[in-house]
Order: sequence, then C-alpha cells, then structure tokens
Amino acid sequence: MSLLIKNGIIVSSTHRYKADVYVKKGKIQCIGINLNKKADTVIDAYGKYVLPGAIDPHTHISLPFMGTYAQDDYETGSIAAACGGVTSFIDFDVQQKGETLLQTIERKQKMAKDKVVIDYSLHPAITDPRPDVILEIEKAIKDYGTPSFKIFMVYDFRVDDATMLKLLEQTKKYGGLVQVHAENVHIINYLNAKLEKQGKLAPFYHAKSRPNIAEQEAIYRACKMVELSNSSLYVVHLSSKQGLEVIKQAQADDVNIFAETCPQYLLLNEQHYNEPDFNGANLKNGHISVVATDHCPFDFKGIKDMNGKDDYKKIPNGAPGIETLLMLIHSEGVVKGNITLEKMVAVLSTNTAEIFGMNNKGQIAPGKDADIVIFNPNQKFTITQSKLHMNVDYTPFEGLEITGMPELVYSRGSLVSKWNGTQMEFTGTLGKGKFIKREPMK
Amino acid sequence: MSLLIKNGIIVSSTHRYKADVYVKKGKIQCIGINLNKKADTVIDAYGKYVLPGAIDPHTHISLPFMGTYAQDDYETGSIAAACGGVTSFIDFDVQQKGETLLQTIERKQKMAKDKVVIDYSLHPAITDPRPDVILEIEKAIKDYGTPSFKIFMVYDFRVDDATMLKLLEQTKKYGGLVQVHAENVHIINYLNAKLEKQGKLAPFYHAKSRPNIAEQEAIYRACKMVELSNSSLYVVHLSSKQGLEVIKQAQADDVNIFAETCPQYLLLNEQHYNEPDFNGANLKNGHISVVATDHCPFDFKGIKDMNGKDDYKKIPNGAPGIETLLMLIHSEGVVKGNITLEKMVAVLSTNTAEIFGMNNKGQIAPGKDADIVIFNPNQKFTITQSKLHMNVDYTPFEGLEITGMPELVYSRGSLVSKWNGTQMEFTGTLGKGKFIKREPMK
Amino acid sequence: MSLLIKNGIIVSSTHRYKADVYVKKGKIQCIGINLNKKADTVIDAYGKYVLPGAIDPHTHISLPFMGTYAQDDYETGSIAAACGGVTSFIDFDVQQKGETLLQTIERKQKMAKDKVVIDYSLHPAITDPRPDVILEIEKAIKDYGTPSFKIFMVYDFRVDDATMLKLLEQTKKYGGLVQVHAENVHIINYLNAKLEKQGKLAPFYHAKSRPNIAEQEAIYRACKMVELSNSSLYVVHLSSKQGLEVIKQAQADDVNIFAETCPQYLLLNEQHYNEPDFNGANLKNGHISVVATDHCPFDFKGIKDMNGKDDYKKIPNGAPGIETLLMLIHSEGVVKGNITLEKMVAVLSTNTAEIFGMNNKGQIAPGKDADIVIFNPNQKFTITQSKLHMNVDYTPFEGLEITGMPELVYSRGSLVSKWNGTQMEFTGTLGKGKFIKREPMK
Amino acid sequence: MSLLIKNGIIVSSTHRYKADVYVKKGKIQCIGINLNKKADTVIDAYGKYVLPGAIDPHTHISLPFMGTYAQDDYETGSIAAACGGVTSFIDFDVQQKGETLLQTIERKQKMAKDKVVIDYSLHPAITDPRPDVILEIEKAIKDYGTPSFKIFMVYDFRVDDATMLKLLEQTKKYGGLVQVHAENVHIINYLNAKLEKQGKLAPFYHAKSRPNIAEQEAIYRACKMVELSNSSLYVVHLSSKQGLEVIKQAQADDVNIFAETCPQYLLLNEQHYNEPDFNGANLKNGHISVVATDHCPFDFKGIKDMNGKDDYKKIPNGAPGIETLLMLIHSEGVVKGNITLEKMVAVLSTNTAEIFGMNNKGQIAPGKDADIVIFNPNQKFTITQSKLHMNVDYTPFEGLEITGMPELVYSRGSLVSKWNGTQMEFTGTLGKGKFIKREPMK
Repeated sequence: MSLLIKNGIIVSSTHRYKADVYVKKGKIQCIGINLNKKADTVIDAYGKYVLPGAIDPHTHISLPFMGTYAQDDYETGSIAAACGGVTSFIDFDVQQKGETLLQTIERKQKMAKDKVVIDYSLHPAITDPRPDVILEIEKAIKDYGTPSFKIFMVYDFRVDDATMLKLLEQTKKYGGLVQVHAENVHIINYLNAKLEKQGKLAPFYHAKSRPNIAEQEAIYRACKMVELSNSSLYVVHLSSKQGLEVIKQAQADDVNIFAETCPQYLLLNEQHYNEPDFNGANLKNGHISVVATDHCPFDFKGIKDMNGKDDYKKIPNGAPGIETLLMLIHSEGVVKGNITLEKMVAVLSTNTAEIFGMNNKGQIAPGKDADIVIFNPNQKFTITQSKLHMNVDYTPFEGLEITGMPELVYSRGSLVSKWNGTQMEFTGTLGKGKFIKREPMK
Repeated sequence: MSLLIKNGIIVSSTHRYKADVYVKKGKIQCIGINLNKKADTVIDAYGKYVLPGAIDPHTHISLPFMGTYAQDDYETGSIAAACGGVTSFIDFDVQQKGETLLQTIERKQKMAKDKVVIDYSLHPAITDPRPDVILEIEKAIKDYGTPSFKIFMVYDFRVDDATMLKLLEQTKKYGGLVQVHAENVHIINYLNAKLEKQGKLAPFYHAKSRPNIAEQEAIYRACKMVELSNSSLYVVHLSSKQGLEVIKQAQADDVNIFAETCPQYLLLNEQHYNEPDFNGANLKNGHISVVATDHCPFDFKGIKDMNGKDDYKKIPNGAPGIETLLMLIHSEGVVKGNITLEKMVAVLSTNTAEIFGMNNKGQIAPGKDADIVIFNPNQKFTITQSKLHMNVDYTPFEGLEITGMPELVYSRGSLVSKWNGTQMEFTGTLGKGKFIKREPMK
Repeated sequence: MSLLIKNGIIVSSTHRYKADVYVKKGKIQCIGINLNKKADTVIDAYGKYVLPGAIDPHTHISLPFMGTYAQDDYETGSIAAACGGVTSFIDFDVQQKGETLLQTIERKQKMAKDKVVIDYSLHPAITDPRPDVILEIEKAIKDYGTPSFKIFMVYDFRVDDATMLKLLEQTKKYGGLVQVHAENVHIINYLNAKLEKQGKLAPFYHAKSRPNIAEQEAIYRACKMVELSNSSLYVVHLSSKQGLEVIKQAQADDVNIFAETCPQYLLLNEQHYNEPDFNGANLKNGHISVVATDHCPFDFKGIKDMNGKDDYKKIPNGAPGIETLLMLIHSEGVVKGNITLEKMVAVLSTNTAEIFGMNNKGQIAPGKDADIVIFNPNQKFTITQSKLHMNVDYTPFEGLEITGMPELVYSRGSLVSKWNGTQMEFTGTLGKGKFIKREPMK
Repeated sequence: MSLLIKNGIIVSSTHRYKADVYVKKGKIQCIGINLNKKADTVIDAYGKYVLPGAIDPHTHISLPFMGTYAQDDYETGSIAAACGGVTSFIDFDVQQKGETLLQTIERKQKMAKDKVVIDYSLHPAITDPRPDVILEIEKAIKDYGTPSFKIFMVYDFRVDDATMLKLLEQTKKYGGLVQVHAENVHIINYLNAKLEKQGKLAPFYHAKSRPNIAEQEAIYRACKMVELSNSSLYVVHLSSKQGLEVIKQAQADDVNIFAETCPQYLLLNEQHYNEPDFNGANLKNGHISVVATDHCPFDFKGIKDMNGKDDYKKIPNGAPGIETLLMLIHSEGVVKGNITLEKMVAVLSTNTAEIFGMNNKGQIAPGKDADIVIFNPNQKFTITQSKLHMNVDYTPFEGLEITGMPELVYSRGSLVSKWNGTQMEFTGTLGKGKFIKREPMK
C-alpha cells in the first residue's frame, strides 16, 4: 500500500515548505518538489497542512480511583485520539505494590492488546521503590522500551526525596528520564486537615487545599535534586506561574528541566491557575517543551458530582482531553497568534518524540513512520460532547467554536479517521496499534 | 549599690556618643553629659567603649550526644560567657519524648539553679509535636517566658513540613518565633548511604555528606512555609552562600526571615563554607541579623578524635565559642573594617534582645538592666585555650592575635569579670544569674 | 534657658522607653528615670511621644521654573516646616552656569539669612561639571559643610555617565555622597516627541511621557556606575516598583545604594505610581532609608492650571509637602499598622541625619541638639489648606483626617510652634535658624 | 546540472537521519530513502554528514580603520569562507555621513560584484540617523532585501537611546531587526581618560578599558528599550557572563532578545572573558541563538603590533575567523560533547537563516538552495595560517588540532571547495555569488 500526498504545506518544528510526500509500507519514503510517483492513493493537499500526528504523553487509560475507573479504555481512548489527530500516546502505568516493573508493563500491555487503534507506549509510575525495582530501571530503559518513570511527591504512594535522588541517578546512568508530579504533600495535608476542621468540604475548597506555593516548593526541591545529581527531570502538568518561575530560574542556571503543561492550564481561568489567557510566550521561548492532556475521563453526572459533593477530596481528578488537544492548540494558539504553527508541531509532536525516545515519530521526514495529519486550517467546528468519541458525558470546552480540523489522519500510512463533513469519523481497525519500544535519551 | 561610669563612649546599634552612665539597683538610671552623681563605685572609662553586654542566643549547655555530654554545664559555661563579655545567653532545651514543654523548661532550669552566674533564658526545641504540645505553645509564649521554639528539619527527631506549618501558625498567633535548623534530611541520608557503601567514612567525608545544597533547599522550603502562613522564621547557624541567597530573595519579597550566623562561618575557611573571609556585607545590610556561637564543647582528644575516627557520623558537632564571641567580632570585624562598631552592637546585643523579646537587655538606655561591658579597644590578647574558661581542651582560634578586650563586665550592675593584665578573671557569684522571662514579639 | 520634659515616651530609631529629658543651652544634657532637675520650663509629656524633630532632606525653596518661582521662600517654607514638626531641612541649591560651588552655596545662604526659623543645610546640585568644579568637591565636603551633591540624569542640565563616574569617585575619596534624579532622558524625549506629533499635550499625558521603565533603566545604570567605582549613591524620590526592584537587587549584591521616597508615592494612587497603598514593607526591611517631601509649591490656580493646560511639559513639577510630612507618615503609616513608630523615627530623622552627616541631629540622646517634638498620638486633625502655613493655594491631601499631631516643637531648645487647640501656631523667630555644616560620611 | 548525494547522514537543527538528496538547478529537489535518480554527479556520502552550509552573519570585509583596511576583500574573504564550509555570509555595511541606505548598500554591492564566490547579503549599519534615513528603513526591509540594521552604542558614530527607540519602532513595524554593539561609551571614555592620565597605554590595558560591566549595562539599557517598544533585538558578539545574565533575565521576562557569540569567546581565555572553556550550555538551552565570527582580519606584523604598541586604542579590533568557524565549532563543540551536532547546525545555519530572513538557506529541505557541505567527521587537520585562505598573516588558533573537516562544499549545487588530502582547495568561480535579498521577519 502506498500513498502520495501532493501540494500540501509540510510543517516541521522549525519551518514549513511546500512539497510532496510519498509513503510506502507505513514509512515516509521520499519528500520532494513535484514528485512523480505512482501510488495506491493520491491525495491533493493543496491549501492543507501536512503535520506529524500529535503525540499525547500524558494519559490515564482505565485509571482506578476510589472504586471506579477512568472511563476510557484502550479502545475508546485510542479511537478518540485518532479522531483528534493524535497518532500515538504514552499511557501512565502505575506500579502496584509488590509488582516488578516488567509485571507493571505487561499488565497494561495486555489491556491494550486487540483494542488499541494507534501506536502507544507506557511510562511506569514507581510507587514501590524496592531495591530490586531500582535495579530493574536499567532493564526498563534498555530492554522494555520504557525509559521514562513517573514519581509522585504527593499522595500515599509518593516517594521521598532520597528515592527521587536514587531514581535520578539511575536514569541518568542509563539514559532514562524521571517525570514528576510536583506538589508538597505536607502543605496539602495541612490544609486538608484545616479545611476539614472548619467544615469546608464543598468542591469549591479543592483549589484552596492546593495552593500554587505547594507546586512551587515541590518543583524547587526537585530541581535541587536534579542539580545535585547532575541529571534531568520532566515536570508533568505544570499549572502555576510560581512553579514556572522556578523552572525558568533553574533553566537559566543550566539545570536540565523539561516542563509539560496542558490545554486546560493555558485556556481555562478556573481555580488557582494564574494564567487566564493563552500565554504562548513560555512555549515560544522554550521554557515549556510539551503540551499534553492528562486525559483522565470520569462522567460528570453520577461520579464527579456525587462522589465529591460532600467532600472535595473524593472527586476524581482529571478531565477528558485527548481528542481536543490538537484542535484547541491550533485554534486558540496558532489562529489567535499566540504561537506559530511550527511551535505547535514542536510542543505536540517533535519535542515529545525527542524527549521520550520515540525515534520513528514526531516529524515528517524520510524514514519516519507515516503518522500524518492532513489538516484543514479553515475548517470550523463547535466542540460538543455528542460529536466527540471519548467515553465520558462532558467536555470542559463545550460550545467553543474552533477553527482548523484534521481532515485525514494516518497511522503508519493507514487512514484511521477522517472528517465527514460535520465531524470526525473513525476509520481504523481495533488492535492495529503497536507498543512503541522507546529508545534511551541522548 | 550604685555605679557611675564617666567619660566613656556609649555605643548603640546605630550611634556612639560621649556621656556618663549612672546605675542604681542593677538598672541604668540616667545617661548624661557631665553627670554629677555620687556613687559607690566610679569608673573612668575615658577612651573605652561602654557596650551593652553581648547576648548569645545559641548555646548547648550539657548537650547529650551518643552517650556523652557537651562539657560546659551552667557553671563553667556561664563563667566563660562572663569572661568574654557575654552577659546573657539563651540555651537550647531539647524536649524529650513524652515531656510537656513545661517539663522541658523546668528540667533545664533545675540544672541552672545555683550555678549560672549571668542571666539566661531557654529556647524549647520541639521534637515530640503532640497535639497537647502544639496547644502548650500559647502558654510557653504568654506564661513561661519562652516565646521561641527550635525545630530540626534533619535528624531522627526532626519535624515534617506539616508540623512546621502548625508551629508557624501558632507562634504567629501568640507572638512567638520558630527557629529552624535547615538541612534536607533526605539528601544527607542519601549521601551517607552512598559514602558508607563506598567505604568513605573518614572525618574528611563529613562535609561531603552535607553539601550546601542541602541547606539551600531546606531554607527555601521553610521560607515557603513562612510565606504560606504569613509568619516569621529565624534560621540558625546559616553556613552557606547558597542558603543566604535564598534568604536574601525571600527578604526582598517581604517574607519575614531572620538569619543567624556564627564566627566560625565568618572566619574559618574549612569544609564547605563558601565565605572564607569575614564578609561584613551581609551583616551591614541587614540580611543577617544575629551572630551567635552554637557553643557546644567536646574535648578534641578522647572524644572528637576517637569517636569519629572510623565514622564521621559519630563525631560530635559543635565547637566551643561563647567566650570568644565578642573579641572575635570586634577584632576581625570592627578593627579590620568589615563592620562598624555600631553594627557589632546590633548583631551581638540589640537585634538579639529585640528578636527574642529580652526587653530589659541589649542596649545602654535608661531603665534597662545594667548589663554593661567597659571595652578597651586597644588591648591585645592572643587567644589560647589555657587562658580561656570554657571546659574543653581546645579552641578553634588557638594562636589568633586579637585587638580589643573587655576590661570590666557588669551583670545587672555587679562586676562579673575583669581584665587582670594578662587575661580575664571571673569575679561573680555562682547562682546569681536569673532566668529571663522573655516577652512575646511585637 | 533650660527645659525638663517629664514622663514622656522617648522614641529612637530602634526602641521606645519612658524617661525624662533635660535640656540646657539648646542641647540634650541628660536622659534618665525620674530626673530631679530644676528647669526654666517643665513639661509633663505623659502619654506623649518625645521624638527627634523630623528632617526633610529634599526641598526646593524658591525654585525657578519657566519664569516663575516655587512660592515658598526660606521664611514661609521654614515656618511651615516648624509647624509640621520638621526641625531641619536640606534644600537643593542648583549651580548656575559658570558658578563655583562656593558661589552656589553662598547665593542661597544669603537668601536664607534673617529669614529661616529652623536649622537648614544645602545640597549643591551640579549642572556645570567643569574640571575646577570637580576639584572643588573636596572643599565642599571638608570645608563648606555640604558633602552631598545632586545630579540629574534628565533635563538639559543633566550630567552624562562619565561625569557621574567622576563625581562618584571624588565623593568616595573624600566622604561625600552623590544624589541622583534617575530617569532616562532619551526615553522621555522620545515619548515627548511622539506625543507632540500626535497632538497629545493635555496634562493627562504627563505620566505617559515618563513611564516607570525610564526610572528603572536610569537606576540600573547608576547602580552599575556605583558598582564600577565601588562608591555609594542616594536615589531621590523613588516612585516606581520597577526602580525599587533594581535597588533591591543591587543591595542584595552589596552595592551601596540608599533610596528615598515621598509621602505622595506611598499614599497617592495617581499617574504611574504602582504602589497604590501605603506599603511599609520596603521601609520596614530597609530597602528604602528615607522619606522626604520634594517640597516645591506652586499655586494650582493661575500657575499649574494655566501653564500646563495646553502642554503638560509646562506644568511645574512638585507639590507642597514639608508641613504634612510627619503627620502623614504617623497617621497613615504608624496608626494604620504599616510601620512601627521606631521605623518612622528612622526614616524621618535618624537615618536622614546619619546619611547626610548631621551629627547633632536626628535622635534624642545626650549631647545632641534639642530639636524635639512632643507628639500627641491621639490628636485628630483634618488636613486643609487654610490651616496650613505653606505659601500655596492647595494641598494634595485636602480633607484627609489624620490621627496624631505635634503639640510642642523645639529647635535647639526653643519653642518654634505649638498646637493651639485647632491647628499649629508658629512661635519662633525669623532668622534664628542656622546653616548646618555637615560632616563627611563614615 | 544535477547532483545526487547518496547514503549520507542528513542533519537538521533538531534531528539527523539517513537519506539521499537530489539536487537540480541549484535547488534541493527531493530527499528520500534509496532514491533512484539519474544525476550528472553522484556522490557516495556514506559515513559523512550532509549539512546545510554554515552562514556567517558577522563579517567586516574591507573595513576601514585609521587609514588602513581589513585585509580580506570580497574575493579573498569569500574564497576563505567557501574553503571553511561557509556558503553564505552577511557583511556589515557602515553608512557614511550623508549617504542614503540605498547608497550604502549599492556601494558595497559594487565592491562585491565580479568577486564574491558564494552568496552574501548586507546589514546596513546606521551611523547618520537623519529623518529621511529613518523613513528609508521601510524600503530597506521591503525592497532592498536588507531587513537588519546594526547600531553602535559606543564609538563616535554611535546612536543615542532615542534613536535606538526610533529604529526599534520602525523595524518592528515593517518586520526588520536591530542589531546592537552594546557597550557603555561613557564607562570606556572615562577609563580611557584615566588610563591615559596614568600613562597606561600598553596593549595590556585594552581589556581594562572595557570591563564586562560596560557590556552588561549597555545590554540592560537596550533590553529596556526593547521592552518599552515591544520589539526585538539582536546583540552582536556577546562576550561577558554578566551581559549574558542580563539577556537570560530579559528572555525569562519574555523580552525578545537574540544573542550572538563568537568562537573566540567560547574558546579563548584571554582578556576579560569569563568563560574560559567551551560552555555549550547557553547554546544548548537557546539563550544564545547564533555563532558568528566578527571576521575582521588585519596582519599582526606591521599593523596590529606597530599601530598599537604605544596606544592600545590604535590596535585594530577583530580577528580572522570566517574559514575556521565550522571546523572549530564541530571539533571543540560537538566532538568534545559540549553541544550536539544538531545544535551546531542550528547556531551555524538554521537559526541564522531564520533570524535574518534567508528563506532559501539554512537547511537541507526540498525547495531550498543546495548550499551543502559533505562533512567528514573523522578527518583530522591542524590549523595553521599557511593552509588557510584568509588574507592575513596569522590565525588565533594556530596549531590547534581539530577533528572533522568539510570534504565537499556546494553553493547552489556547484562545487566551491574540496578537501585535497591535506587541506581545502578552492574550486569555485569569481563573481558567481549573488546578493541575497532577504525577507522581513515573521
């Protein structure tokens, strides 16, 4: 099966140019001016962008939470992704007490098998840092294809600073990367206890219990561990201006910190987020490298509302987002002039692939997997839950009119979704997605 | 008993001027030009400084350590103090498991009784932060006269961040102050384990196990707790440039942080201290408010050398210092032009009294206790253990020639020591020192 | 003539205490508990503060501006000062083209003679930095009693950076101090030209032509000159948060910068001032050392309104303020809890005297000039132009109700004003004020 | 004429990959895996890098200096460039008094005609900012193809801050860019006068007259002008750590500043350069965007030595560098692990092309000019003046052994130089280089 995409505007993380793309056996074979190639399918992409598919490195497929689960499984979640122009994702895979990392990984690989429609990988989240688990890091990086490891500084399954240091040291040694959920657990526990004592348990108080300073302090502490061990760190779902200031300072001091943020922190002015409007500056200047979703869907009715109405601590965190990632960043970011189209490709695809060792993904270049989005920059769409594919009863962006939608989405050269005139339509096959064995970092 | 000091140069924390001082019943009654007063004793202080006695707010009298004790008790320690021009001190009083704060305080008051020769107070160090202890804070501030509370961020008896927050909140409420020993325990444990695994246990590795970054991180974290609770904090024995940078930044952001340093960190270039020479700038500009001693004497022979020779972790910390405090800061600080005489009075007396609620101490002013040092700025003295009064077999400043010595030292109007031509001589009375009930802070 | 002030609360820059003050021959002779002294006048100051008189180091008596003059001369200006509890002031004395500094000084001394009712000194402002003028600096410091020198970075009579460097070097050498009006002239000229081209000349545009960044840049540049020459600098009428940030950073880097601000920048939220409310933090923590007035009165009617109505550049700058300085800082600062009473004394008297070498002023201490304010902290007063003594038709604080007023004001032991039940009343004598020969700085 | 480059490793600013490149009519036509194309020339680049040719945006061809000229003209200079793998350059073109910008540009274009062997462009340096010149900026950007404009903050022909503001405003409006030589002229003049008075004129004092603080201050001031006008700025030949700190801070505050440095500041530890070793961190993290040469050759014998021996101010600045740019950054930067190969391509080609609007240069991509270097990463070479082509009697890097040399260098598909086994050999044609009409910036 071969594919020829003619006349489109190819976009990289730094440039755009007009050229044709020829795809064979799921790989990009050739890019050129006026390519004369025969192909099974020929697409005229005149006036369209030819983008590397977006990569979402922050999802929580089927995450358990207080007796229930995040509602997207690998089938519904990956279909939603494909329909949003996301052609690969890295799912968090939380180690259970007693598990080896290999068991952790195989458990979730089994869940994905026969279901997942696009390529995916896993980040083991280390919650039981036994000595054998620390030793297993090397294999996870070299053999299992999972060189990134999440840790939590908060929650019961958090690791302490000494464990963080050990993990930073091990990942540095073998070319891996630690990802951190950075919040000071004591600040949050202290405020939870105080609010509980005052009877302040309504959902409104959730944000009060997690002030920006809790993120700021934890990020600073983590940066110091990185500085001490001369290693690297990736901060997930950065949400506060104060935390960003610490990251900027560390980066200026040549401490190797990557930051990820999410559309909700760029676009929504709720709770404690200090950046009400889309502020592209920190994406533009590289202080933030990646935009991901923290995709973690729970129904609003019956779950988010019921669980939490008497105690904000029982509301499942997270929001559905994998399907709307690309459209939001294009419409609110690029169309509104906050970032360039090239920067969008960087933070949604190229940087993500590079940071996480996905060497065949993240750009339109000869030899790479043909994970390609033909994107119509002028197509209008009004976001509404009923036209999305995520298995959840709401979207935080309900009613938002956006400009620019995927038209055709390819995973290794196969069409997995397309615009049908009113919405995206899934056209792929269950189980065709593969586990991505990622490479160690440079 | 009355005392008239004629013709001296009175030094305050901001100015100096020539005037006479008249003392009655242990209090300063009157200060004036050419005072015509009859007095039991008349001193001609022409060419001498009339200083408020130094206050040492950081001592460890009889501190237990791995089966032995710091060798100065209230008798030898307070005699040494008096001989050095220190006319009051605040001793650390470490809560034992299960004790109330009152029990903690009364235990050490009992040790001081009939021994102490100058006035003293106590800082309870909280190591067992039970709910009843947290509640007792109010009484300690209002009734016991001990409004300052030390906590450790390191060692087994450390408190966690949530407890720190509670203490900051309670002290703020009632006018108290938390003092913090700031080091990140996990960094130190991590490095200890690593050094142990590598067989690196010689005393040389002590400093390697406590890098500056461990202090810097802990200070930053503590500052964030202060910012969150809008309270105040006092950082004890600041020893690193990195820690100071954090404090300066917090102060510039109007977070209420006081810093204390010690002569050894100003004068000695050993281990990891980044400030080899006396750098008065941070005293001058107010970033550091207090110079104290961390007085904690253990013999070098038989204790420091034997305990630690096979494992640096077994060396008792601390050094003898209470007797040399004033002479060192005058000679190395004032005489060498690093700080003004007035700033010396500020950091050794006036600031200390103000920060710790010692309202009758710390300055030469009508109504204050007559804790006075007649100081000869030209008297030479070579520091040597045999001419000092501390109960320990060495001084870190052995052989240092200094300029300027106390000539007469008064505690509430009574002479407690004097220069006998070659060294200081104790002239006071055992048990005449009183416990100072300190006031809440403004 | 002798004076005994009984039972008052004496306030210094660091403390307050109850004691009696005895004054003879214009000097403070003695301070003590229950002084038994006979005196020509005995005052019972029970419940009152005994303050050192305020010092205003920033006035523009009879300043010429576009054909008119600031309306207070040494008579009306110094009477207003006395009625506000200001017992000395330092007036700016702008060098005219061709003048020596001595001529500059003598010209204004002549204007003051027989008129001035309290002690005063002069700051020569250097506008014609000929080589002989640079050389004359030494004499001005050592002989003329004027060790401080103002320079402008803006206006036609500004000096360039090289001249600033020369002055910093000379003043450092002999113990003087440069004071700088810091604004980037090119930014202002550029914006003036732009606004003029756009026809934007209404008074509203005055602030637009002087953005905070103009002050910030100039302060940074001046700080770098100080750093290069290892000298000191005093920034007059600091008005922007951005400028303050630069000063804080320089101070943290141990560059010797003093800052002065004015009540209008602390209290008024007009124009470009970023600190709408009285923010005592920067006074508290010492980043700002002095509060002065920039007293420079022009009638609103007929002058400020007429001159500037068609061109904001023709409005005389400055506002009347010398009489309201103390009452404003007490009422808005101390009473409202923004700063302590002691800090008020520091920024209005003690710091000012110390920085500018007024060794006999600025504190209540034996041997100092008896410039004393008996201050009633509870006396209410509504500020209104008709009850003030400044020679101008308005006050920016019209209608403000304040708490706390001077009751008796002494200049070298002579009563110069008193509260008559409804307002202050002048009780002094024309020409009794003396020129203060100031000392070099330490 | 067509060219097929087989089996090489194509390097972009972010990635490398194996693919073939097909070139026709001077343009890259196609890039692909195993391209089956016929071509006039087929190169096997197995094991070699296929790099976009380096771009040097900072040269001073034939610069006049005190009666002599920089010794490379467009012929010798561009031949040297070609032999070093530099395939285009942007030369500074200093406006003469009275010239229009067009006259300035045409004057140097005439000098280049029939001589230049690779493509080049010009940066007009504005020294006579008449109103008509300010207006001509628009044409220079839109019509002349020279959207970047240099200004000097130092030297007699400097512009003042108001002119800088005007230029920033104009360039912002039409998509241009100001480049600034940032040093505080008054600091340098002041120190020159002081050194002259002290008889300190030997070459050694050159660095003393230009302390880092002079660069730091000027960069800060320039950054403030950029902030005020919300424009962009490019700082040429950044040489101090202090200046870099200011740039980092401005970038963190989202002020749009680009910095350029030179190999001599990365590699040589002479004079006042604070960064003795190659510190790739600031290139890696993007604080510095471009490495250029400041190529400005004067013979050492007879010119640099004679002119300056009695007065350092008469030594011509600048050093020969265009030929050694690529080899130095590869050998000292990439081979020694200071930066990645991709980052080298960014700072030598891709960033440079993007910043300066050279849309057909700077990367290996379909449609771009075939300015290509086939680079042998293992070829050793010892830098020595006799094997270089610059018209000057020395190189600052004499004797340095480097690893990695160009093997074949193409300008728009034509071979302009090649490695002949011992050194590079020029193979191009005089006058074949074209003037590059650059585009406005995005």
